[in-house]
Amino acid sequence: MGLLVVGSVAIDSIETPFGSVKDALGGSAIYISVAASYFTAPVRLVAVVGGDFPREHIRFLESRDIDVDGLQIVREGKTFRWGGRYHYDLNMRDSLYTELNVFEKFNPVVPSAYKNSAYVCLGNIDPTLQRQVLGRLGKPRLVVGDTMNYWIEHKPKELAETIKLMDVLVVNESEARLLTQEPNLIKAAKQIIKTGPRIVIIKKGEHGAVLVTEQTIFSAPAYPLENINDPTGAGDAFAGGFIGWLARTDDLSAENLKRAVVYGSTLASFCVEKFSVDGMKDLTYLQIQDRYRSFMQLSRFDER
Amino acid sequence: MGLLVVGSVAIDSIETPFGSVKDALGGSAIYISVAASYFTAPVRLVAVVGGDFPREHIRFLESRDIDVDGLQIVREGKTFRWGGRYHYDLNMRDSLYTELNVFEKFNPVVPSAYKNSAYVCLGNIDPTLQRQVLGRLGKPRLVVGDTMNYWIEHKPKELAETIKLMDVLVVNESEARLLTQEPNLIKAAKQIIKTGPRIVIIKKGEHGAVLVTEQTIFSAPAYPLENINDPTGAGDAFAGGFIGWLARTDDLSAENLKRAVVYGSTLASFCVEKFSVDGMKDLTYLQIQDRYRSFMQLSRFDER
Repeated sequence: MGLLVVGSVAIDSIETPFGSVKDALGGSAIYISVAASYFTAPVRLVAVVGGDFPREHIRFLESRDIDVDGLQIVREGKTFRWGGRYHYDLNMRDSLYTELNVFEKFNPVVPSAYKNSAYVCLGNIDPTLQRQVLGRLGKPRLVVGDTMNYWIEHKPKELAETIKLMDVLVVNESEARLLTQEPNLIKAAKQIIKTGPRIVIIKKGEHGAVLVTEQTIFSAPAYPLENINDPTGAGDAFAGGFIGWLARTDDLSAENLKRAVVYGSTLASFCVEKFSVDGMKDLTYLQIQDRYRSFMQLSRFDER
Repeated sequence: MGLLVVGSVAIDSIETPFGSVKDALGGSAIYISVAASYFTAPVRLVAVVGGDFPREHIRFLESRDIDVDGLQIVREGKTFRWGGRYHYDLNMRDSLYTELNVFEKFNPVVPSAYKNSAYVCLGNIDPTLQRQVLGRLGKPRLVVGDTMNYWIEHKPKELAETIKLMDVLVVNESEARLLTQEPNLIKAAKQIIKTGPRIVIIKKGEHGAVLVTEQTIFSAPAYPLENINDPTGAGDAFAGGFIGWLARTDDLSAENLKRAVVYGSTLASFCVEKFSVDGMKDLTYLQIQDRYRSFMQLSRFDER
């Protein structure tokens, strides 16, 4: 089948009240690919880094069976760098710096071997680039896309054109509201559905996620973690787990979409337990299954 | 068994972007009692109103089999009045006025016929009064209590003494965080459990509710309503549906507590569809069962 992931690759420095990391692996394409790699292989990564990108990170990606043929290395450039600090309430963070570096002129080249990819995940990058990637592919079975406030505010037209081409839009609460000017999340999701995607997933962080289609609504809880160390990448890990499961099963039925949402939530829950991608570094499939079942326990009730 | 409800009875004037009501029935004890009345009868109401309290409201309470023997009428006084205006984002509201009137000197007298009540719901009033009510009762099987930011900030010691006596504390997200100074909701709930209640329910509005005990966590979704007209009383309707179901079934098992949370969410979802208590005025038990099943649909997923 083949899953293609495009997005950013970054070197992150992150501080939270519970610790910090310096020069750690980050970026939307990384979190998506690593999460998806637990379900399908190889994951085809389209992204760009500079000559400073540590070899150990490449080796890690390869160890997860992530195909780096589409990872451009601009020898004379520097990798995208981001620094952030989270508040005691982890829902709030400040960006300390954002150095786009080679990411600023990213031209996503799709290796010819990737063009038949059936599953495509467009991580959060300029919507024009997301659309370019789609233009360079055959006819994927499913396109999942993410975006962020910045593009909603600064490139609304380009974003609308790109969203039209997505099957699934994955956004967080504030993005859904900003995109539609509608505070009611269900109404917001249904408005988005009218503009193209047939599925909208709204990520609500500690409140879980909601999947909305024309016919169904599915509400998944968040895993009740007491020890969250670093929320960075949770949304991308969600998207990666979601599309990874779908690529593995190649089943787009309503029931399987629900399972995919829970697998997405599962990977996101592992992600935030540690810094950077450490929470998803060496999970076993059994651990993932166990947590999936815990999600069932968490939300199941019966009739009487 | 007998369910006793104590709290405020008010005359509310409410504006939302979708309409308004003037001089409508409101107050925590009202929303709790009306919601509970769909499960158990009679509901014993302990509260106070003034001589201006409309007879039609009394008739409505009686029509719902709510016992008003414990409803003090201070002939020369005026009923508690509240006016509020909600923003387009219904999560935000401004209080326009709060006239305590007879509520300011409320001394909850418990009729002797009520003293054997097995189920007690302490609506949001001064924690000293909540404790007084408990002191005037026998040994209830279950005490459910609510509170609000005001008491957490202004009467923390009295509140702590009262919370100690509750089996179930029902609070919203911000109250849980304020009470514990802990942003992580699961940790906050577990901290509260150490101070007395063996069950903590955190209401999260449009994100549902979480029930936390020493052993279990249960996450219930919110019903995905597209048309919310008036959020007033949703939390009280939740508490009423919750304790009403428990009083009806007299079963405090973990599985039945989960059902009670969903019945609470069910009543809250009906409550917010209309203004004041209109959404809970003439439901049928079949409607309630249907919505309970919709909650199951909404959150159910399987394994593969």
